[in-house]
Amino acid sequence: MREWEKYIRKVEPYVPGEQPQAEKVIKLNTNENPYPPAPGVEKLLHEMDADVFRKYPDPACGCLVKALADRYGVSEKEVFTGVGSDDVLATAFLTFFNSGKPLLFPDVSYSFYKVWAGLFGIPYETQVLDEEFRIRPEDYKKENGGIIFPNPNAPTGLFLELNAVEDIVSANQDSVVIVDEAYIDFGGKSALSLTKKYDNLLVVQTFSKSRSMAGMRIGFAIGDQKLIQAMNNVKYSYNSYTMNTPSLLLGTEALKDEAYFQTAVSKIMETREWSKECFRKLGFTFPDSMANFLFVSHPACPAETLFEALKERHIYVRYFREERLADHLRVTVGTRKEMEELFRFLEIYLKENGYQN
Amino acid sequence: MREWEKYIRKVEPYVPGEQPQAEKVIKLNTNENPYPPAPGVEKLLHEMDADVFRKYPDPACGCLVKALADRYGVSEKEVFTGVGSDDVLATAFLTFFNSGKPLLFPDVSYSFYKVWAGLFGIPYETQVLDEEFRIRPEDYKKENGGIIFPNPNAPTGLFLELNAVEDIVSANQDSVVIVDEAYIDFGGKSALSLTKKYDNLLVVQTFSKSRSMAGMRIGFAIGDQKLIQAMNNVKYSYNSYTMNTPSLLLGTEALKDEAYFQTAVSKIMETREWSKECFRKLGFTFPDSMANFLFVSHPACPAETLFEALKERHIYVRYFREERLADHLRVTVGTRKEMEELFRFLEIYLKENGYQN
Repeated sequence: MREWEKYIRKVEPYVPGEQPQAEKVIKLNTNENPYPPAPGVEKLLHEMDADVFRKYPDPACGCLVKALADRYGVSEKEVFTGVGSDDVLATAFLTFFNSGKPLLFPDVSYSFYKVWAGLFGIPYETQVLDEEFRIRPEDYKKENGGIIFPNPNAPTGLFLELNAVEDIVSANQDSVVIVDEAYIDFGGKSALSLTKKYDNLLVVQTFSKSRSMAGMRIGFAIGDQKLIQAMNNVKYSYNSYTMNTPSLLLGTEALKDEAYFQTAVSKIMETREWSKECFRKLGFTFPDSMANFLFVSHPACPAETLFEALKERHIYVRYFREERLADHLRVTVGTRKEMEELFRFLEIYLKENGYQN
Repeated sequence: MREWEKYIRKVEPYVPGEQPQAEKVIKLNTNENPYPPAPGVEKLLHEMDADVFRKYPDPACGCLVKALADRYGVSEKEVFTGVGSDDVLATAFLTFFNSGKPLLFPDVSYSFYKVWAGLFGIPYETQVLDEEFRIRPEDYKKENGGIIFPNPNAPTGLFLELNAVEDIVSANQDSVVIVDEAYIDFGGKSALSLTKKYDNLLVVQTFSKSRSMAGMRIGFAIGDQKLIQAMNNVKYSYNSYTMNTPSLLLGTEALKDEAYFQTAVSKIMETREWSKECFRKLGFTFPDSMANFLFVSHPACPAETLFEALKERHIYVRYFREERLADHLRVTVGTRKEMEELFRFLEIYLKENGYQN
């Protein structure tokens, strides 16, 4: 072993999620939107002059920040944008969680919270969800250096009512509280309105799910201008140019078509509610998801067995090996047609293998 | 002041570079390429189906990695890609410089080296360039936890001959040595060939300058597969999806047109050599740049005065207030026409203000 190999950063080995290459695949494993982005996005793409790429992108992300401020009724000073919500969240961790006191988040939630805490040397304490996977606000009323939770939570899909969110934010006005709303547009109620009242609240959202732009990497945060200014200072200090020009232009364009957005989101919610019925009829149980996925468990058929069986039929869902999660599958809500194929298969499979009468 | 404000990360205040908004501007301040990207880039852009954006991008950046491996005659396992060379360099800092021993780099070089070292808690020692702004290889033969330098260096444009680069790499086989070749395509000789011989050498390049794609944010590193594997492990551990789909597809496309690339680069080098003559005639001195910029100083006219005078005429160049640099201006090589306008102005200005007979 060479001397320099000893000093390579030690990290958890990680294998990127499955990107099935086969032609005919039903991909319900990464919570992507089954519908394309707003039609204006493709139109603008086809009109774009590639000469704009020769210049650096606007480091202040001006056009996108303005469009977001207009859409959400806040000032431009209250909006931060980044390369997907992962980039936004990591920047927030780096900016705010430097007190040495533990960051609090649920034991079952987004897996990267632990990773960023480790990366930036932030101590943390996970708070155990109740038996029905619910966040208990009273767990977040102890000394802390910050709080973060997804709402709806992942991978459960459970939405925490806004009065409970406010309870946590108001009880922790000495800390920055981040509500990670990646899935909020599928029927939950955003905490955005609370940012006017609490200057310690940062709300983070993304274009990856409800706006069908996972491939563009666009995330944003809204909060008091002191929070946003601090995040921009940190960002500019180590990387001035992060979001590229197509993301800025196409992200701005996507925000213009509110009607398309509402229609796409409604269709997904409709399919989700219909899918709940179908899962129920097949004997599955699941938390009552308000996201674009369902976290389902079958009383007889082991989740891993079913995961493999689905994969063999080119239906990809997500299986988590961790404790508390290992008897569930996370199934993204696809188109009605994709879900019909899924249920056709499940019905036959469960019967033929004696998991269902 | 709220309690949480005390724990905001302390950073150097930074103001993003000037992005002049006026219509008729000569922009020679950020080393952008004056020519558009290869024509295939715009063609592909106009044929692209926006539906691809709804899915996450390939986290392994497969198509771009393959195209780079083919172009540079290495294996795919020897290529890492990121969101501009800033992202690539920051990932390398995080991955390799964990020994606690000081990282070495020139006192005059890319300003972000210090920033990333600070961000990741890496000790560093700057090595003083000689009086003509040259890197002295003997300065890099002391105990260290890593070495990095730009070649050609910035903002001087000076190229360090390959045997001197090899001298540094071979004398430091216990450390990772990074050669930051953002400007290498403008006449320098890349250290890429040395990566076959030295497994501690990482060469970093970018699409921002020679490939006219600063707005796309595409950077890459080539080195021994152990280096690349380590960087990928670190990257995947904290952010799986960084480069977006347009960058992957359009970056791949840009690599296909070698003839266009060579022509554009040659034109810039021709204009640079012609500009050297013009600067010389006006009494300016400058290191003999092999980059797409010139670092010029006038014996009579103070750099800051000239900077302001140029700006008033909507000609933007770069002025650095720091010691050793404050009597120079960094002037990007634009089109021949842009440079002609610059020299027309300089000739009159220097005469009229008594800096020149």
